[in-house]
Amino acid sequence: MIEDKNQQRTPLSELGEFGLIDHLTKNFKISKKSTIKGIGDDAAVLNFGKKNVVVTTDLLVEGVHFDLSYMPLKHLGYKAVVVNLSDVYAMNAHATQITVSIAVSNRFPLEALEELYAGIETAAKVYDIDVVGGDTTSSKSGLLISVTAIGEINSENAVYRNGAKPNDLLVVSGDIGGAYMGLQVLEREKEVFKVNPNSQPDLDKYTYIIERQLKPEARKDIIKLLNDLEVKPTAMIDISDGLSSEIMHLCTQSNVGCDLYENKIPLDPEVISTCEEFNIDSTTIALNGGEDYELLMTISQEDFPKIKANPSLTVIGFITEKAAGMHLVTRAETKIPIQAQGWNALNK
Amino acid sequence: MIEDKNQQRTPLSELGEFGLIDHLTKNFKISKKSTIKGIGDDAAVLNFGKKNVVVTTDLLVEGVHFDLSYMPLKHLGYKAVVVNLSDVYAMNAHATQITVSIAVSNRFPLEALEELYAGIETAAKVYDIDVVGGDTTSSKSGLLISVTAIGEINSENAVYRNGAKPNDLLVVSGDIGGAYMGLQVLEREKEVFKVNPNSQPDLDKYTYIIERQLKPEARKDIIKLLNDLEVKPTAMIDISDGLSSEIMHLCTQSNVGCDLYENKIPLDPEVISTCEEFNIDSTTIALNGGEDYELLMTISQEDFPKIKANPSLTVIGFITEKAAGMHLVTRAETKIPIQAQGWNALNK
Repeated sequence: MIEDKNQQRTPLSELGEFGLIDHLTKNFKISKKSTIKGIGDDAAVLNFGKKNVVVTTDLLVEGVHFDLSYMPLKHLGYKAVVVNLSDVYAMNAHATQITVSIAVSNRFPLEALEELYAGIETAAKVYDIDVVGGDTTSSKSGLLISVTAIGEINSENAVYRNGAKPNDLLVVSGDIGGAYMGLQVLEREKEVFKVNPNSQPDLDKYTYIIERQLKPEARKDIIKLLNDLEVKPTAMIDISDGLSSEIMHLCTQSNVGCDLYENKIPLDPEVISTCEEFNIDSTTIALNGGEDYELLMTISQEDFPKIKANPSLTVIGFITEKAAGMHLVTRAETKIPIQAQGWNALNK
Repeated sequence: MIEDKNQQRTPLSELGEFGLIDHLTKNFKISKKSTIKGIGDDAAVLNFGKKNVVVTTDLLVEGVHFDLSYMPLKHLGYKAVVVNLSDVYAMNAHATQITVSIAVSNRFPLEALEELYAGIETAAKVYDIDVVGGDTTSSKSGLLISVTAIGEINSENAVYRNGAKPNDLLVVSGDIGGAYMGLQVLEREKEVFKVNPNSQPDLDKYTYIIERQLKPEARKDIIKLLNDLEVKPTAMIDISDGLSSEIMHLCTQSNVGCDLYENKIPLDPEVISTCEEFNIDSTTIALNGGEDYELLMTISQEDFPKIKANPSLTVIGFITEKAAGMHLVTRAETKIPIQAQGWNALNK
């Protein structure tokens, strides 16, 4: 969990900027037909034929989005890619290429960046995408990663945030709250480590939620599943900031309201037990935790038979008229307004 | 030149992340036919028909790439866009969209970011591009801007770095060395200001070179000119890191050598006089200064009649066989090998 102090250290200045980019990206292979020209020119050149191009970008900042005292650099590289691909999948699109830029202080040796890029390379392989460009520069403090992801989609298949209609079902993939509870466990262990650096934490019972935090996956499989099931959601968004704020985005942009059922929210048993251990309400975590990278979508009632048997998709509520507002229907069957308390990177 | 201490200060936390993005981008209009969906969903959606898509990305880091003690935020926003568009034009492509991400510490009030985005908006208007996405987050120190630029091109028109052939002419747009000398003047004035904060610098005789540093332009006009003249360069690269390192990139990737004539390098009179004042060799500045954002290209001898009368294009040498090496032919008619001493962001 803690930095290996004996690792090899090659100062970045030994390579220079161009040498560094060449070195870090030399193993990256181009595999997509749409990549005409990858790294090595002023810009990449791509061809999508008649398809639409999807573009999204995210910044990850040390001390804000990640803590290197428990986030291995390889996992960080992987996660930086996944976070962006999730946004491409949320359009119902296929991810095809990424660019990766880093700003890095000279406290990082070359070997640390090699770890980071090994994670990026792994993600590129797992998700079958090409790394086609990027920039490498120094920073005054810490590490910052900027990824831009590109995808393709036939225009008739694109799913936006604004297509939800009253009576549509509110559906979520996978389960939620895990990434946030994984973070709570990691933060607690960090405090323990500060007091007693010889402590050997037993994290076995938190395996799932820690993995949700350190090595999240984007739901490429759900896009394939929806296609196989011949279900086109009416609206879709990825859950990066917690269920409540994403539901609010979706409803606001679609000009509708919703009823979300507390007892339908899918929670992993490890999330429930860890919430009990930390004495936190699991619904609060599901609503406001964030970083789960699941997909929240609305589908027509008529598509319900196609998805109802699927363990990866859970109906958690339905869409209402805008005037009805956005509500959580609690286990006690009371209705309370949904409020955004999503994870806010600017207030951290 | 120096920060206005009386400016209005609205803390960023008042808006939150989503409020901030909405606020900063609310004036941005979509004008390109290829922009199907801009800001406001998980990703932007673009359509380029049968054309190829060009993608490039750059990071600008406070204290490394810019110094806010003399760089107005509005100029910085403008420059962050221009730097990226220059890479698109270097492919002989048309720039169409950008995404802009910023990481910002809470020492910046909202009004500062409004200035930054006003510059971005101005650049978007001047270069006729859409801002289609981005990310806004906090940083632990300073300001960082990550821009990704997207463009379009018919595949037969793309110009890469690797197409130069022996006997091709080496051609540069505009003049070079200005941005670096502008930086020297600004750095000197900063030191004077530190000693005497009441000094009123007279920068009239440095107007051109300071503008080259603070408000560079990308050579969209040269792409149009080449098209109008029916000249397709055999290779092209933008000069961001100084003439020598860009010539070396172009020759290495094209597997050729070159003779560059010192007495042909286009220098503005203000660059020459300021070099004399600073007692620096102007050729050294042209070769190694950087940040000029001019285009370096190679063209076939048969296209020479089309460009020879044009004041925006200067023939500075010619391409040789690789075995002949890369040389500067000095005013004294001696040949010295070209070495890359380009501006290196990692060593600054």
